[in-house]
Amino acid sequence: MRLTPESLSSRYTAVRRQSLAICQPLATEDYVIQPMEDASPPKWHLAHVTWFFETFLLKPYYPDYVPFDENFEVLFNSYYNGVGEPFPRSERGRLSRPTVATILEYRSHVDDAMQVLLEREMNDEVRFRIVLGLNHEQQHQELLFTDLKYNLGNNPLYPAYLEQALEPAGPTDLEFEEFGGGVYEIGASTETRQAFAFDNESPRHEVLLRDFAIANRLVTNGEYLAFMNDGGYERPELWLSDAWSRINDSTKGFTRPLYWVQREGRWFEYTLGGLRPLELNAPVCHVSGYEADAYARWSDSRLPTEPEWEVMASPLEISGNFVESGKLHPSGAKDVAGLRQVYGDTWEWTQSSYAAYPGFRAFGGELGEYNGKFMANQLVLRGGSCVTPKTHIRDTYRNFFYPGDRWQFSGIRLARDCNVN
Amino acid sequence: MRLTPESLSSRYTAVRRQSLAICQPLATEDYVIQPMEDASPPKWHLAHVTWFFETFLLKPYYPDYVPFDENFEVLFNSYYNGVGEPFPRSERGRLSRPTVATILEYRSHVDDAMQVLLEREMNDEVRFRIVLGLNHEQQHQELLFTDLKYNLGNNPLYPAYLEQALEPAGPTDLEFEEFGGGVYEIGASTETRQAFAFDNESPRHEVLLRDFAIANRLVTNGEYLAFMNDGGYERPELWLSDAWSRINDSTKGFTRPLYWVQREGRWFEYTLGGLRPLELNAPVCHVSGYEADAYARWSDSRLPTEPEWEVMASPLEISGNFVESGKLHPSGAKDVAGLRQVYGDTWEWTQSSYAAYPGFRAFGGELGEYNGKFMANQLVLRGGSCVTPKTHIRDTYRNFFYPGDRWQFSGIRLARDCNVN
Amino acid sequence: MRLTPESLSSRYTAVRRQSLAICQPLATEDYVIQPMEDASPPKWHLAHVTWFFETFLLKPYYPDYVPFDENFEVLFNSYYNGVGEPFPRSERGRLSRPTVATILEYRSHVDDAMQVLLEREMNDEVRFRIVLGLNHEQQHQELLFTDLKYNLGNNPLYPAYLEQALEPAGPTDLEFEEFGGGVYEIGASTETRQAFAFDNESPRHEVLLRDFAIANRLVTNGEYLAFMNDGGYERPELWLSDAWSRINDSTKGFTRPLYWVQREGRWFEYTLGGLRPLELNAPVCHVSGYEADAYARWSDSRLPTEPEWEVMASPLEISGNFVESGKLHPSGAKDVAGLRQVYGDTWEWTQSSYAAYPGFRAFGGELGEYNGKFMANQLVLRGGSCVTPKTHIRDTYRNFFYPGDRWQFSGIRLARDCNVN
Amino acid sequence: MRLTPESLSSRYTAVRRQSLAICQPLATEDYVIQPMEDASPPKWHLAHVTWFFETFLLKPYYPDYVPFDENFEVLFNSYYNGVGEPFPRSERGRLSRPTVATILEYRSHVDDAMQVLLEREMNDEVRFRIVLGLNHEQQHQELLFTDLKYNLGNNPLYPAYLEQALEPAGPTDLEFEEFGGGVYEIGASTETRQAFAFDNESPRHEVLLRDFAIANRLVTNGEYLAFMNDGGYERPELWLSDAWSRINDSTKGFTRPLYWVQREGRWFEYTLGGLRPLELNAPVCHVSGYEADAYARWSDSRLPTEPEWEVMASPLEISGNFVESGKLHPSGAKDVAGLRQVYGDTWEWTQSSYAAYPGFRAFGGELGEYNGKFMANQLVLRGGSCVTPKTHIRDTYRNFFYPGDRWQFSGIRLARDCNVN
Repeated sequence: MRLTPESLSSRYTAVRRQSLAICQPLATEDYVIQPMEDASPPKWHLAHVTWFFETFLLKPYYPDYVPFDENFEVLFNSYYNGVGEPFPRSERGRLSRPTVATILEYRSHVDDAMQVLLEREMNDEVRFRIVLGLNHEQQHQELLFTDLKYNLGNNPLYPAYLEQALEPAGPTDLEFEEFGGGVYEIGASTETRQAFAFDNESPRHEVLLRDFAIANRLVTNGEYLAFMNDGGYERPELWLSDAWSRINDSTKGFTRPLYWVQREGRWFEYTLGGLRPLELNAPVCHVSGYEADAYARWSDSRLPTEPEWEVMASPLEISGNFVESGKLHPSGAKDVAGLRQVYGDTWEWTQSSYAAYPGFRAFGGELGEYNGKFMANQLVLRGGSCVTPKTHIRDTYRNFFYPGDRWQFSGIRLARDCNVN
Repeated sequence: MRLTPESLSSRYTAVRRQSLAICQPLATEDYVIQPMEDASPPKWHLAHVTWFFETFLLKPYYPDYVPFDENFEVLFNSYYNGVGEPFPRSERGRLSRPTVATILEYRSHVDDAMQVLLEREMNDEVRFRIVLGLNHEQQHQELLFTDLKYNLGNNPLYPAYLEQALEPAGPTDLEFEEFGGGVYEIGASTETRQAFAFDNESPRHEVLLRDFAIANRLVTNGEYLAFMNDGGYERPELWLSDAWSRINDSTKGFTRPLYWVQREGRWFEYTLGGLRPLELNAPVCHVSGYEADAYARWSDSRLPTEPEWEVMASPLEISGNFVESGKLHPSGAKDVAGLRQVYGDTWEWTQSSYAAYPGFRAFGGELGEYNGKFMANQLVLRGGSCVTPKTHIRDTYRNFFYPGDRWQFSGIRLARDCNVN
Repeated sequence: MRLTPESLSSRYTAVRRQSLAICQPLATEDYVIQPMEDASPPKWHLAHVTWFFETFLLKPYYPDYVPFDENFEVLFNSYYNGVGEPFPRSERGRLSRPTVATILEYRSHVDDAMQVLLEREMNDEVRFRIVLGLNHEQQHQELLFTDLKYNLGNNPLYPAYLEQALEPAGPTDLEFEEFGGGVYEIGASTETRQAFAFDNESPRHEVLLRDFAIANRLVTNGEYLAFMNDGGYERPELWLSDAWSRINDSTKGFTRPLYWVQREGRWFEYTLGGLRPLELNAPVCHVSGYEADAYARWSDSRLPTEPEWEVMASPLEISGNFVESGKLHPSGAKDVAGLRQVYGDTWEWTQSSYAAYPGFRAFGGELGEYNGKFMANQLVLRGGSCVTPKTHIRDTYRNFFYPGDRWQFSGIRLARDCNVN
Repeated sequence: MRLTPESLSSRYTAVRRQSLAICQPLATEDYVIQPMEDASPPKWHLAHVTWFFETFLLKPYYPDYVPFDENFEVLFNSYYNGVGEPFPRSERGRLSRPTVATILEYRSHVDDAMQVLLEREMNDEVRFRIVLGLNHEQQHQELLFTDLKYNLGNNPLYPAYLEQALEPAGPTDLEFEEFGGGVYEIGASTETRQAFAFDNESPRHEVLLRDFAIANRLVTNGEYLAFMNDGGYERPELWLSDAWSRINDSTKGFTRPLYWVQREGRWFEYTLGGLRPLELNAPVCHVSGYEADAYARWSDSRLPTEPEWEVMASPLEISGNFVESGKLHPSGAKDVAGLRQVYGDTWEWTQSSYAAYPGFRAFGGELGEYNGKFMANQLVLRGGSCVTPKTHIRDTYRNFFYPGDRWQFSGIRLARDCNVN
């Protein structure tokens, strides 16, 4: 990760521009709302990622820096208690001001100062924080897509974010590839690392695996529909106890993937291109970890563990349906041999709780709140999705969400013990 | 209320224009949010009042009318179950679409059709519905002010809606004027009425009153501050049981009027012109019925009943600080003799539950839901406020809100039994 | 109400014994639970009425009195903030101690001291407080029945409180008796009163009524079933807005009277004698004010106002199906001429909000919290029920509950404007 | 686990008697209440463990068996959806019936039938289910203690369950014992097992550990008090994000261990013997996993993983302060060398999420719901407590609770990476 200043500066510019490009198709009104607590307003995202550079770089490392608006320190703090008590997350959509125009001015103000900083001599800590800030903004670029999809897809008008030209895929066989057990290494090395990794990916360490088999592709909409038609959501024996309580909750329950809509007996799916007939060979998406687990149980399989997933994925080249494809929707698997859809398309739920690797050390100072404090009650997801930047994903990347969360582009890859079947 | 078609048409145009004029200072973002369930988004108001004309006039009485968008029948239905199940009120702020621009097109579309209807021969029912629709829109014009005040005043940036040039008033004595008891008539006559009145104001009927005395002006901020400094919010003996539960509620409790803000020991008040030092001689505003009742008890008084208020107000000319003054904030009482601030400035809480007058008949058909179904758990307020159109208020006008509501421009006029003091 | 000391003492003994007699059929377990916040544990009632004598008589007027247990001052305070912060009402059923045996000891301890006080010379205030305490205990005797009915009737085993021998009644015609309008006096006179009345029944005052008609008997189960079979609970036009929200509430909604149970297509009703087939000619009971209002609207009638009810009832002798009959369930109307079931059987919802009479003065001191602070959001019920002591009811008696409450023995008497039909 | 019929029969008798012995000091009232959803009424426990034998043994394996009461199938089903929809857990404390006496009759009825079954020839499945039923009843014996402690300790009277004669311990040094990393085996072997184990303890499998150090004793009250006095509960950097939300929750937050009470500046602890001054050298108990984690972070340590705990504990003899000691409260560590308090005293929170071991197979049929469906959102605790039967615990035993749970006898043993300090 020895970026020269020039390349760091140009990467800064590129990443910052990309956030604006994502928002370009939005109406001003779309920037404002927060239809559920998890789905923050786009204008909040644009401001918060800017706040990150202002708070962790400009304020401590740019002596002459004049903050754009002192109120923003509180307003756009996401969850850094070390910086102060953040504005309540659930109320982000209750604020019409600052307007989008003001936030764009804020971005320019910070970008101007950052360009000065980027041109100066910088020490390792500053360089690290800039790279972290860019990775942070890439994470929020993915959240921009997931949140604006919820924003528009929760609207009974089902407006499209943009026009999509999606080509349906043909059917492909589901097969399981076998991997031998033994001691493997997983995680990102902090000693010799060439590239950026988050603190939670380290240290690289040995894990002991048993023989396992893992599916060659993601579970499809058609397969998931068979689970539903088999009474999947009504059979308690398929569900974890907490999941069963959730799907029977009168206000938060669910009976189908998040964006599936039934009209006159036919199934449709809301995509960023609007409502479309459900494509049976495309991967099922926007399912919770609970649904992934129930589906796996129904199909006499299980979800992979996090180390199994990484052992499977590590040898593979990182390619797939990422945000750069412009599809913004998972594609059906190609009819070729071998493991497919490992990177991109949908995040893949693992059965592993999000926890510290042995010897884990959080980033220093207030940045220690970045990842470590979320290591409770969440599951790891792996592999990136169709709205992840390709340059952002890697084999050791750990994403994490609560098992009931569904608004991410999250899907299912099955695994099995090797001696099964 | 025999309006000629021309005058009805010009009144239609004037009322419809006024709604847009109110919104003119808003940023697009301000049209979208709903910071609490009661405070609907401005764009919803603009659409809903249009829906009212489309639903109750154009669809039944204009055979060629083509609806602007079929989805709007559900989306902009407020509470008319007879028209269908309305889109949930609590979710109005979760919709970015239709945009403000689309809603303005919707308004034009309906206005064009209405102009055709207005030029045709019309029967009494059509004429009544148009007048009702205009009164309905005037009610929502007041709600636009109360809701956008909540919208902006709930924002830690306290943005101003517009510049205000408010002049502080001097102190004035609080005195009680006495009225003799006996049988009085109140309410609007349906037989001989010359002007519009809502169904809930009728029939005109006799009431029996005892001698009573009523304050010559509204309670001031300074007087209310004395109540607070005397421990008003901490003394259970001053409060109704439901009020005491409410002010001790960890999430919905209150310890001061809605828009009062304390900074470094000094009191400020959020007004539509932004945060201003509390003006002690201006009327206290944005208090709940519970607070009005507790304040009255603290001052050895009581709130007036609805008939007492009307008996007091009926002889008076309708003049005062209405929306037309442009102040958009209650003014201190003038230092002259007699009853002041009866109309305008702030709505005045009465102690009377909102109930049917004897012999009450609701409007016919679906319009019967307009007023009658709210006759439970609410209190009557009288007299209009500084954001009420002058042409909209009258002595028989009955406004009604839950006793815990505070976001209206609601204040306090005291009353007493005559033999007291 | 010039009770001689002897008669006061014997009345004290009789009332206190009656509370124990009511509980006699209970198992120890039945004394403990609180299946909803409103339905307090029987052992709490036994202790609270004792606390009332200890707090308002023994502590202030018996200098040598030694409290039974200092903790009880807080534990058995219902809602008298002037005495201190009460133990939370919602948690009464979370306490197994003090046990029933200890509470019986507490009762004896207080009764012993009260007997000493009763034998002493006493001033008017002491005599008033004793009479108030006995009326208070009679109110809780009624609550003992309503709460233990909820306690047992909420249990899927539907255990009987005691054996009942109820005789079904035949059908009777529903007719409306007419009353002429004019000025009437209602309320209890404080000047010349011969008997006890609560503060909220005074002062006696004039009211102005229009001609009205009132039903000669209560609405029956059979009539209410016709309302249900006509889609009564599914038709929004029949319901107040708050009622419609309530019946559609996923956790608190209702679709039938509280104790009606349907099994294999047949209707049953839980009574204090257990589950019984629904008796069609008996009065419908355990309906909320909302249901009473909707039923009245469905039958082109309305609920009576409080003054109408009192004007109707005042001339009548107080007789009916009270607790002394031992039936503990409302009976069908007798097939005779004239007004029936006015006293006893079921409390009758009025359309009147519970409010202060003009010139109302609450009891002095902490006892001022007895009635006055509840004058918000509640409706008045009149006439007593089959679990009211006959000596406790009178024509001026005002009971009050929230319009959604259903666990009282509350039923429906219809009224109409005279010029209707 | 080759129990001869005689020994199985006598063990059945002994275990069943023990449940009654635990309840012997209770008043009838104590059997009834459920002061929070997790703390079921003692009479429910007595009935549910009986239901287990009736449902899983008598109904399927005793052809002539006549159920005691058909309603009990639903009423006393805890969470076995395969048996039918259980009575709602949160409402167990709303039922006064069946009474304690009836439940004791139910126990006798089932015991009589079980004695017949125990004397018959039985196959492996029946024997397994009897042993499972006895282990199940032992688990509920521990829950009886934890639930009745909550029951009594939540009462402001703080009644004692029984008299305790607890002797305070002296201070002991906290030291860390080191263990070398490598591949270890943990879990219960299903192949060769000599003794009962739950399905979730199997299969025995290899784990890979790094060098680690683990504390020689539990964290004491005195040490925990130092954490509190150092602002432990007010410093967000010490807490997981979900924990911080929880401790700031206005209704469910916490600022001290569950049973700690402060009076006039001094700390007390509620024990089953009543309120006692806090013993500084006794282990801190009734802390949540969140508090354990925060304490560990504050002390530059961490919680042990589940495999680390088992590797530490496996070589040790199972002895300690169990229920048989009669203390019913954790004791201070003895001042001797080596690991202490590993078994008994308090359950020890691990940092490991409760998850399936590789190759996990749940018990068959409806009994598959016993353990497996809870493998989400919970943490593993190890070692048993002062209310665990000694015959019930073992090195492979996995207990599990949500990280916010505090009503179990749960404490803290610290661990560290070996290269730390």
